[in-house]
Amino acid sequence: MANNQPLVAIIMGSDSDWPVMRNAAQMLADFGVAYEAKVVSAHRTPDLMFDFAETAASKGIQVIIAGAGGAAHLPGMVAAKTTLPVLGVPVPSKHLQGQDSLLSIVQMPKGIPVATFAIGDAGAANAGLFAVSILANQDAALSAKLAEFRTKQTEKVFNMELSDKP
Amino acid sequence: MANNQPLVAIIMGSDSDWPVMRNAAQMLADFGVAYEAKVVSAHRTPDLMFDFAETAASKGIQVIIAGAGGAAHLPGMVAAKTTLPVLGVPVPSKHLQGQDSLLSIVQMPKGIPVATFAIGDAGAANAGLFAVSILANQDAALSAKLAEFRTKQTEKVFNMELSDKP
Amino acid sequence: MANNQPLVAIIMGSDSDWPVMRNAAQMLADFGVAYEAKVVSAHRTPDLMFDFAETAASKGIQVIIAGAGGAAHLPGMVAAKTTLPVLGVPVPSKHLQGQDSLLSIVQMPKGIPVATFAIGDAGAANAGLFAVSILANQDAALSAKLAEFRTKQTEKVFNMELSDKP
Amino acid sequence: MANNQPLVAIIMGSDSDWPVMRNAAQMLADFGVAYEAKVVSAHRTPDLMFDFAETAASKGIQVIIAGAGGAAHLPGMVAAKTTLPVLGVPVPSKHLQGQDSLLSIVQMPKGIPVATFAIGDAGAANAGLFAVSILANQDAALSAKLAEFRTKQTEKVFNMELSDKP
Amino acid sequence: MANNQPLVAIIMGSDSDWPVMRNAAQMLADFGVAYEAKVVSAHRTPDLMFDFAETAASKGIQVIIAGAGGAAHLPGMVAAKTTLPVLGVPVPSKHLQGQDSLLSIVQMPKGIPVATFAIGDAGAANAGLFAVSILANQDAALSAKLAEFRTKQTEKVFNMELSDKP
Amino acid sequence: MANNQPLVAIIMGSDSDWPVMRNAAQMLADFGVAYEAKVVSAHRTPDLMFDFAETAASKGIQVIIAGAGGAAHLPGMVAAKTTLPVLGVPVPSKHLQGQDSLLSIVQMPKGIPVATFAIGDAGAANAGLFAVSILANQDAALSAKLAEFRTKQTEKVFNMELSDKP
Amino acid sequence: MANNQPLVAIIMGSDSDWPVMRNAAQMLADFGVAYEAKVVSAHRTPDLMFDFAETAASKGIQVIIAGAGGAAHLPGMVAAKTTLPVLGVPVPSKHLQGQDSLLSIVQMPKGIPVATFAIGDAGAANAGLFAVSILANQDAALSAKLAEFRTKQTEKVFNMELSDKP
Amino acid sequence: MANNQPLVAIIMGSDSDWPVMRNAAQMLADFGVAYEAKVVSAHRTPDLMFDFAETAASKGIQVIIAGAGGAAHLPGMVAAKTTLPVLGVPVPSKHLQGQDSLLSIVQMPKGIPVATFAIGDAGAANAGLFAVSILANQDAALSAKLAEFRTKQTEKVFNMELSDKP
Repeated sequence: MANNQPLVAIIMGSDSDWPVMRNAAQMLADFGVAYEAKVVSAHRTPDLMFDFAETAASKGIQVIIAGAGGAAHLPGMVAAKTTLPVLGVPVPSKHLQGQDSLLSIVQMPKGIPVATFAIGDAGAANAGLFAVSILANQDAALSAKLAEFRTKQTEKVFNMELSDKP
Repeated sequence: MANNQPLVAIIMGSDSDWPVMRNAAQMLADFGVAYEAKVVSAHRTPDLMFDFAETAASKGIQVIIAGAGGAAHLPGMVAAKTTLPVLGVPVPSKHLQGQDSLLSIVQMPKGIPVATFAIGDAGAANAGLFAVSILANQDAALSAKLAEFRTKQTEKVFNMELSDKP
Repeated sequence: MANNQPLVAIIMGSDSDWPVMRNAAQMLADFGVAYEAKVVSAHRTPDLMFDFAETAASKGIQVIIAGAGGAAHLPGMVAAKTTLPVLGVPVPSKHLQGQDSLLSIVQMPKGIPVATFAIGDAGAANAGLFAVSILANQDAALSAKLAEFRTKQTEKVFNMELSDKP
Repeated sequence: MANNQPLVAIIMGSDSDWPVMRNAAQMLADFGVAYEAKVVSAHRTPDLMFDFAETAASKGIQVIIAGAGGAAHLPGMVAAKTTLPVLGVPVPSKHLQGQDSLLSIVQMPKGIPVATFAIGDAGAANAGLFAVSILANQDAALSAKLAEFRTKQTEKVFNMELSDKP
Repeated sequence: MANNQPLVAIIMGSDSDWPVMRNAAQMLADFGVAYEAKVVSAHRTPDLMFDFAETAASKGIQVIIAGAGGAAHLPGMVAAKTTLPVLGVPVPSKHLQGQDSLLSIVQMPKGIPVATFAIGDAGAANAGLFAVSILANQDAALSAKLAEFRTKQTEKVFNMELSDKP
Repeated sequence: MANNQPLVAIIMGSDSDWPVMRNAAQMLADFGVAYEAKVVSAHRTPDLMFDFAETAASKGIQVIIAGAGGAAHLPGMVAAKTTLPVLGVPVPSKHLQGQDSLLSIVQMPKGIPVATFAIGDAGAANAGLFAVSILANQDAALSAKLAEFRTKQTEKVFNMELSDKP
Repeated sequence: MANNQPLVAIIMGSDSDWPVMRNAAQMLADFGVAYEAKVVSAHRTPDLMFDFAETAASKGIQVIIAGAGGAAHLPGMVAAKTTLPVLGVPVPSKHLQGQDSLLSIVQMPKGIPVATFAIGDAGAANAGLFAVSILANQDAALSAKLAEFRTKQTEKVFNMELSDKP
Repeated sequence: MANNQPLVAIIMGSDSDWPVMRNAAQMLADFGVAYEAKVVSAHRTPDLMFDFAETAASKGIQVIIAGAGGAAHLPGMVAAKTTLPVLGVPVPSKHLQGQDSLLSIVQMPKGIPVATFAIGDAGAANAGLFAVSILANQDAALSAKLAEFRTKQTEKVFNMELSDKP
């Protein structure tokens, strides 16, 4: 696990989002990228959210990953209070399967961007991976790890066998 | 028009929302309810938004009407910073016709409610009317006006004629 | 539980809606707001519905919360027969997960507003909370309770821990 | 045009629905079926609606066609107050193109049916035609007309030419 | 159960639709209306379907109820081959929950109507009930039964109790 | 234009579908593939449709392209009556923009396939192109033309210029 | 099972798609059509995908069936690199039930067609069946088998019994 | 305009996407960030696309912005061939208004991320702005410009006036 100064912050609206957002943390840990992960709710802790967003850059955070479900305001509101890149992950919602989360996150107005990823686990993992790709722009070792990750991923597909063919 | 201490605040994310939100203002003006209307953007003026929401009650505002389109965070974020009733109006969006606005406003998590109305002009007018109904609970004269409004509305339907019947 | 003159009425189209609508009742009970809860069906007991809506105000009811699923006509039809504020809760439907309920409730025409909340449990709880916010406008003690509720809610988030970080 | 005792009643929530609902009237007129057409609003004239629905059968009406848009409650509420067959026509809505109207009309709960047709002009015409098919069950002359209508409709297709073939 | 000359035919594309369509049969049986129920597939037995549709009227059938899922062509194609009233029931589909079935059935072009009901069990039951309402137009005893059904249905709601109120 | 024995038949439910379906014809003409194009309506000329489908193979037709909108039954019903490959084109519908057409065509049950293409002009052109690719499997000259078409298409993109760059 | 030179290739983005895509393989095996099935991922093995697509025709493949879920790029990208007929199968996705897969596959731009089938098992089986219909155009024995398959399928429906009729 | 070594590449599937994607170029030009913009089609120029993606990093590109509509494969396929951050912009489509484009871009599988922005002009502008925020992480002057941009944007809202208040 990464244990030095975090470069990436992973935030989410509730601890119930953690099983999804943990996929982002795992990806960062796999790459040895230091991160912090905590609960920050747009609706229930708005002041904490603003304080977090305003101070993130000065604490050395370079990328923020924010996950939220339903009327998912966290990524967009954090983006409104920082100029750091903010990555949004639509957490699946109970009744609409994350379609509400996706639209609430991705349809940001001109001027305040949120980079949005797929609904659920895959999106969280990819937000982690995308954070790595941003950091890798200025870190040759990380860039090499990313290339290696891709190679292994490709090889894993090469080794897939289809059993029980008719 | 109402010109004394505003009881209702109408806010919106951009002056481009005014043609829709003006329907709320018109309704309040028709009932002689004092209101203020201004642009407060969740994403572009987040601090102004928080300041507005935190101080609204102390300024005598009793109901807040907030209109927004797309990733429509304004109503929910204002609701997160006040305990006043917040009414949300989904403003039609360019590509998704307000379906994104509607879900972003209505799908609030447990604990921070936003009362949501129909997409567009009808929703804005109804938010104004709903604000009147809240105020009428403690204002017999306003309650009487509301009853009268309904009666006239009914009569208007009675007088509709269908021309050119086959 | 509240046991004096009810200020809020919670109605629903069937007793099968009670597990959802009970969240509204729980919220009101938590705040000590007297309420009544009963089954009133727009489609199966239309006359009861009209009688309920016409007499609610005179019985001291100040806010009506109506839950319904599918072609959810109850909130809108009650609103057509009273000038009290009507809060609508879309109950999840079997096949369309409440998307039909949501549109049937929120898309009211100009002139008859229904304040709509999220699909399911969260929406029902928030309708209860919104009723409290309306009543709190004229009840300082209730307003203080509402502020306290928010503070506790915020603290609950502060205390969330994410276990098993990678 | 039909001018004797109406067998079919066409109602709609507003005179703005008439351009759509006129297609039903035209179809009935084409078949010589007597009808009446008028504005009855579920939300703005609820008592008129109930009175209409309760008395329709005794006035000789055998089929009711009801058109409505948005939170389209008219067909379902009329069905709740009569045992006559009620045909519902989803009128296109401004922002959601009638998807809300369709779901509000078709998703009726068990016990109160509304026969629903396509969104807009085609649906209104088909509701008229379906009313004819119900009446034709007990009217041999009308049944013959219906067969003739179909034959002509088929022939019209036979005569379609595609011009400007590449 | 009804055992004389069937007045209503219930058809469906596969025996897997029977658990849904059985609700229509049950309703007819409850009213003592004779019906027949069988599998007729638009896609797998097209000739049977056409033969069924062409001969239904001459066999004394007065109403046809057709249930189908997915690309649900059965109701519309039967309607194309008969002038009898055809009632369509959207059977829930595996991946799209019957949204495809609903649109395939309800969006018929001008000239060939299909009266469409809700997705699934409720829609099937209501199609049965609607068939009764058509037949009741010319059968006073059936009409009385229908009124009695409504009364009992209303009473059932009156007797609903909400347990465990907070 | 192709003028010998048609290998491909293009059918559509109405001459109003021709502006869309003409794109398929144009593609076939561009490749010198003989085709016939005519109006065959599933709902208004069901017998003609069955006759067409049953006899197409014996007339030398090798591929059928069928376009339809709304409750678009034509492609699926033709497929039910022939073992030839049937290509379906969802024609845009007035209110739902072809979403209904798409689902009605693509969601065919196991056993009767319809190869479905994009909504509107692009889908029609691609159905024509796909028919060419089927025929090219056994026609080396056509296969060469197809390769040439692709090369030209690629070159056209190479030559695209973006004007007025900021 | 087929064991000679494959005429059809079945590819899919992951071995997790095999339970769905196996339905295509089963259909081909039932008809004695030689096929190959393997994992080729558009996103994880893009070079393998291009190599596969470029060489398929020269290896004797006449039809390619490609299954993919979510942002399902495999069918369209393979189609971009071959002039063989490509059949696309939308694999159900975790949160959106294959609605994303369907749109990603079917909405191809003019010039590069993908023949699309239903979401999931039925679509995969039908893609297999459609491949048979293409091959049967030039193989009388296969064409006869296809006719026989249809006959048996029809008979299976004839033999369906509905048990437990009310 | 920027005229030195490009740090950002803007690509799109057709010159018809340029009016949308020009918003990204404008944003970069406003910040003085060097960019290149050209047409690269996933479906019509697949080899060019792969070559572009493989060589982008070595040419000094640090961020790729890719816009596409319909079955929008360009962003995802470019992402499959580079480890640079790829930003995807859903271009509005003719019939589905970009809903297809959005899902095709955002629903990428685990392992190959695409950062997705809003449908249309706002999304393109925000992709440009997000590219700036990535570059600003390592460029203090650019970071200051970004802060200034935000300040001006905020001030612009402060100066909005609502005219013609009722």
